[in-house]
Amino acid sequence: MKDYLSVHPWKIIEEGFHAEMNKVTESIFSLGNGRLGQRANFEEYFSGESLQGNYIGGVYYPDKTRVGWWKNGYPEYYAKVLNAANWNILDIHVNGERLDLAQCKVLDFRRELDMQEGVLRRFSKVEMSDGVQVEINSQRINSFENKELGLISYQIKLIKGSAKITCAAKIDFDVRNEDSNYEENFWHQYRAICNEDQCTISAETKKTAFQVTTAQTISVTVNEKAVSTKPLPPAETEVGSIFEVKCSEGDTLQLYKYVILASSLNHEKGALEDHAIQSVQAALANGYDFYLTKQKEIWANKWKDIDITIEGDDQAQQGIRFNIFQLHQTYTGDDYRLNIGPKGFTGERYGGSTYWDTEAYCLPFYMSTAEESVGEALLIYRYKHLQKAIENAEKLGFTNGAALYPMVTMNGEECHNEWEITFEEIHRNGAIAYAIYDYINYTGKQSYMAEYGLEVLIAISRFWAQRIHFSEKRQQYVMLGITGPNEYENNVNNNWYTNYLACWTLRYTIQSIIDLKEDHPEHYERITQKTQFKEGIETGSWLDIIDKMYYPYDEEYGIYLQQDNYLDKEQILVKDLPEGNLPLNQNWSWDRILRSCFIKQADVLQGFFFFQDEFDIDTLRKNFLFYEPRTVHESSLSPCIHAILASKLDMPEKAYEMYNRTARLDLNDYNNDTEDGLHITSMAGTWMSIVKGFGGMQVINGIVHFEPKIPKSWKGLSFRLKFRGTVLDIVITSESSKIIRLSGPKVVVAINGNEAALSAENTEFVLPNA
Amino acid sequence: MKDYLSVHPWKIIEEGFHAEMNKVTESIFSLGNGRLGQRANFEEYFSGESLQGNYIGGVYYPDKTRVGWWKNGYPEYYAKVLNAANWNILDIHVNGERLDLAQCKVLDFRRELDMQEGVLRRFSKVEMSDGVQVEINSQRINSFENKELGLISYQIKLIKGSAKITCAAKIDFDVRNEDSNYEENFWHQYRAICNEDQCTISAETKKTAFQVTTAQTISVTVNEKAVSTKPLPPAETEVGSIFEVKCSEGDTLQLYKYVILASSLNHEKGALEDHAIQSVQAALANGYDFYLTKQKEIWANKWKDIDITIEGDDQAQQGIRFNIFQLHQTYTGDDYRLNIGPKGFTGERYGGSTYWDTEAYCLPFYMSTAEESVGEALLIYRYKHLQKAIENAEKLGFTNGAALYPMVTMNGEECHNEWEITFEEIHRNGAIAYAIYDYINYTGKQSYMAEYGLEVLIAISRFWAQRIHFSEKRQQYVMLGITGPNEYENNVNNNWYTNYLACWTLRYTIQSIIDLKEDHPEHYERITQKTQFKEGIETGSWLDIIDKMYYPYDEEYGIYLQQDNYLDKEQILVKDLPEGNLPLNQNWSWDRILRSCFIKQADVLQGFFFFQDEFDIDTLRKNFLFYEPRTVHESSLSPCIHAILASKLDMPEKAYEMYNRTARLDLNDYNNDTEDGLHITSMAGTWMSIVKGFGGMQVINGIVHFEPKIPKSWKGLSFRLKFRGTVLDIVITSESSKIIRLSGPKVVVAINGNEAALSAENTEFVLPNA
Repeated sequence: MKDYLSVHPWKIIEEGFHAEMNKVTESIFSLGNGRLGQRANFEEYFSGESLQGNYIGGVYYPDKTRVGWWKNGYPEYYAKVLNAANWNILDIHVNGERLDLAQCKVLDFRRELDMQEGVLRRFSKVEMSDGVQVEINSQRINSFENKELGLISYQIKLIKGSAKITCAAKIDFDVRNEDSNYEENFWHQYRAICNEDQCTISAETKKTAFQVTTAQTISVTVNEKAVSTKPLPPAETEVGSIFEVKCSEGDTLQLYKYVILASSLNHEKGALEDHAIQSVQAALANGYDFYLTKQKEIWANKWKDIDITIEGDDQAQQGIRFNIFQLHQTYTGDDYRLNIGPKGFTGERYGGSTYWDTEAYCLPFYMSTAEESVGEALLIYRYKHLQKAIENAEKLGFTNGAALYPMVTMNGEECHNEWEITFEEIHRNGAIAYAIYDYINYTGKQSYMAEYGLEVLIAISRFWAQRIHFSEKRQQYVMLGITGPNEYENNVNNNWYTNYLACWTLRYTIQSIIDLKEDHPEHYERITQKTQFKEGIETGSWLDIIDKMYYPYDEEYGIYLQQDNYLDKEQILVKDLPEGNLPLNQNWSWDRILRSCFIKQADVLQGFFFFQDEFDIDTLRKNFLFYEPRTVHESSLSPCIHAILASKLDMPEKAYEMYNRTARLDLNDYNNDTEDGLHITSMAGTWMSIVKGFGGMQVINGIVHFEPKIPKSWKGLSFRLKFRGTVLDIVITSESSKIIRLSGPKVVVAINGNEAALSAENTEFVLPNA
Repeated sequence: MKDYLSVHPWKIIEEGFHAEMNKVTESIFSLGNGRLGQRANFEEYFSGESLQGNYIGGVYYPDKTRVGWWKNGYPEYYAKVLNAANWNILDIHVNGERLDLAQCKVLDFRRELDMQEGVLRRFSKVEMSDGVQVEINSQRINSFENKELGLISYQIKLIKGSAKITCAAKIDFDVRNEDSNYEENFWHQYRAICNEDQCTISAETKKTAFQVTTAQTISVTVNEKAVSTKPLPPAETEVGSIFEVKCSEGDTLQLYKYVILASSLNHEKGALEDHAIQSVQAALANGYDFYLTKQKEIWANKWKDIDITIEGDDQAQQGIRFNIFQLHQTYTGDDYRLNIGPKGFTGERYGGSTYWDTEAYCLPFYMSTAEESVGEALLIYRYKHLQKAIENAEKLGFTNGAALYPMVTMNGEECHNEWEITFEEIHRNGAIAYAIYDYINYTGKQSYMAEYGLEVLIAISRFWAQRIHFSEKRQQYVMLGITGPNEYENNVNNNWYTNYLACWTLRYTIQSIIDLKEDHPEHYERITQKTQFKEGIETGSWLDIIDKMYYPYDEEYGIYLQQDNYLDKEQILVKDLPEGNLPLNQNWSWDRILRSCFIKQADVLQGFFFFQDEFDIDTLRKNFLFYEPRTVHESSLSPCIHAILASKLDMPEKAYEMYNRTARLDLNDYNNDTEDGLHITSMAGTWMSIVKGFGGMQVINGIVHFEPKIPKSWKGLSFRLKFRGTVLDIVITSESSKIIRLSGPKVVVAINGNEAALSAENTEFVLPNA
């Protein structure tokens, strides 16, 4: 755990330069607007530790698979988010000496990520080797007003001595992915053009043939007088402008850099350069302040809907805002082709863009805090990949339209190549089915089932029915060769969570078919024809599975067993592990982890989280008290689920411990890996641990319920939800809980089981706490 | 299955050129002498399909590990057998046209591997594009007389037209391993020297710094008149001589090429070149015929001891001789640093040099057919690696001198990097313990236990005692996270074979300690001090494990279960698989194979093979009849074990089917992979299926027993065994079985349980068959 950033309710602040933490800081201070994003690399040249990263959503490269031992069924390629042109560069020399914070004397330094306004700011006071001192004030924006636009305001004030300052403002397209399997460059066919007004550099990705044009124009003044700049002679992979000025003490140099990043995802290839040039000139004409103002307005509007306030705990407050801010920088839901990568735009790790994290963790966040279309976009992403999921299952020997969605994907094709995950961590299929339920249950939008949902459900149910088989020995159905959410077990039999989720999917699909047949026979006809669904035969076999499924259970402990024979393992609790053993994934060999009873993340408990209404509180308690002490939470997705269940079980200390672990995972670099990028998808889990955990929010029979239980140290918690078109404010204090209907249709809500109809705007429902 | 080679009792013959099979033929016709070896590449340039391969035993390179997803505990390197200088080359032009069997018109062709004499011969009759015809007769030897020496006799006879013939006789050291992980060259620092008398080229391996010098000299005549040759100007990685002659119809050009391959394994580095030059000149002085005669003598002597004759079945006869021949080309037991790689000197696949194949399959062959020191050398190889095996176990969290021998190794360090194998296929450790028992039981050499065996046994027993733990739930000891010999199951619990083998090791170790304490208290003291063995505590815990070990068993079938819950799998027999599914490893995705009931190779039955005396015949029958029909024999190590057990069970057809599958695995290319090299280690299994299967040989209480059961189609089977210094001939016909004591001490033998003392040389014990 690290603790070098200042606590502030709206900002992340680095006070004084922590060069040794720079890669972590670059991740934490990342910017993005849902379409593009970047790590917080310095504008100036920096010879210290840094991971350069600029990303454009949806532009990927299928990197040739690298394995030690090939297994039948592995995909040939792993689709990776691409590191794109580095557009930040301002290469500055002061009296011929390069400005480099790793080399110069840094007299003062402050970097802040302003989450309220969506702006990255930095102040540096530097002394050069000749004694000249400069103050630098920089600001950077990834614009939400124009999502192809990045802007930099960069001010240099000469505070001691006089100096000749030269600056090359550049775009560098000679970039590589750090995670490239074969140290290959993924880009080729560069085209660089520079003139007085702007410069552009274009490149194409190999194989996928995406084209990206990056255009730049700058304006420079000294003491508000314009400075003329010259285009650099274009190199193969680099363009830019250069200027030189002589400044005296007290002079202020102000530079604005406007950059357009346009891709063939959104423009005709032939028109890309013209579009980029026009856009960058329009941005210049509008000016930096125009976009800064817009940025503030847009974020202010966003925060109205998405903010969570915590009174009395600034660490927790900063944590949740940071999580919400980064999620809304990553995904905005306006493009079906994009999704939520585990690192967003903050790093390269894990490639791909979509894991089961999207359905199981992120969907609830976006459903509650963004337009309804945003949640739906996440679901339609998978609907559009259905055919590829069917093909994926066929490769593994499944038939009759059974679908297995990929473990990791960019375009619907499987990328992953670890047999115990790729072929066996198939609960992801269930999470995709569950998301359909979750979406319809939350939004009430039944029409989604007929339009998109049922086709997906049928294909997934077909997969389960083939993957499960009848054990003659046991006279029950079983599912063999599984990796559950707890990836510290591989290739187990009868993972309870997967067995349960599979049968739940079958039940939900059957019920949805029955409902549709009754309510919309015309849709029923269309879908059964399209999918060649044989109702009697298929649902008959599904019902038999539901009826005779085997669920591992232990009478003695009264718990569901994570898998067959889990209790054969040596039973040790995490608290009893000798010092130096944690984290296991850095200290134990893989087989030792696998043989041990230790659990990486919620597995049985993930099922209790999804299906809270299907188990009584005592059963939950027994399972929680058994499994949590064996859980090492070495997945970022673990603490949030435990925070929510601990709240439900009235275990406030455990809930608070788990909340802090998820909320400040990156701010405190708990897992020592924030330098690779942020844990974006688990941030939605942080949101859930507040809203579903401390807020106790659940939608039951179309009514939104709350069972608030806030930590003792908190004076108040408030958050806002979008629910079926209605906007609700929830304000919880230690004394009472209050729900205010702000706008939208009337709604029935419930606090601790007490329902109230909020029939006019601004009506409140207040209930004193028990 | 392929069938293009002629059947002959002593030769492998390719009649007519099968260019499309050339890589398979190159493997099958490989030569070796235990220290060096090579694939049967042509001397002339060949533009067709070929895998060039020349290898020097013990010269290896630690190739950087390549994995998709790193797991804690993986080794950094994979030690690989190195492709060394290609010393065959005779690059020939006839009237300026290159002699290349892939391009010229081949009028006649015959290639034969003479197993009786240890010589590779080839006859080719070729027409060049200008109509000139030549006959080529080549012979090649990897000398047993001088194990650093390779020789070629190459004769060109002009049978039509006249021609200018040029020939460059070369050594090419620009070689790469096909299986290099990063397409790297493993050699560097070449030094090439050419003069009139000979040329040498030396190179050093990267990292391991082995030096190899290859020296060549040639002599050439036309119609027995000497032809002068010129050294080639040395290139960085190539040396040689060149000559040009004009020949008329009927002329015969005869070339002898002598090559020395000397390595720093056996010589001081500074003296390597001088040694090679002296040796190659001595070889030239002795002349080709000297070595040819020696080669014939040495092989004749060998065959006296190792031959097996089968009357009435030439296919079977050819098969067993081919297997014996290749084994004795691969390993001679005169260097503790060498071992038996799965491909010997016939290919690169599988790297490393030592698998559990050595102990479980090869040891019995060498104990019975070579000097006693040869079997002992195989055991001492592991004794010398004990410290590294202890370090290997420490890396995985084991303590107190527990040893885990590597899955694949060259120098004692683990090379393999597949968690389910490297960390979990630990039955290899048991095979190494079993080999100590097997060696002492066969040879009667009890002193081995005190000298070497017990230290290894204690370290392996310590490993088992830590790897096994007590299940509170079951109130028995269990072993979790195992891959058995059947690699079509990974990470299972309580693999019966491994559980049994582990407890057997504990029992054997305890008994050996008790015996040693009584018989040789001084050795007992020395070993317990050296290993810091705490007898009471350690054996106490081992006895508890032996007492309370859990063995999965099914009452209904009366069989030991391969692992926990094996019967949960869908039970299908191999014969009922739809066509096109076999081999599974080419047609099914990996997860489907893992989930299925299908078995790659003997697993429970491997235990029945090792411990035949500990189970009654009915139990064996039940297990065989259950498991064999579920076994796909997709490991080369599978058919032999089944052949032996089928013989024991009086299932002659199954035994014969399995025998042919193992004996002719490569000759008929059953698995479609002979082009990568031969399956050397399973060849010892072929020998076992004759001697232990059809011969029913077993050593019980120091007496060598036979229960002969030869296939109906065989008129006779005879083989020779070395047993405790006595040489025995065993002659089995359909009428009777006969044992003749040829030499050595008197001995008691038994046929079908009837014992007889053979107290004088050449006494026979004959028993008519029942």
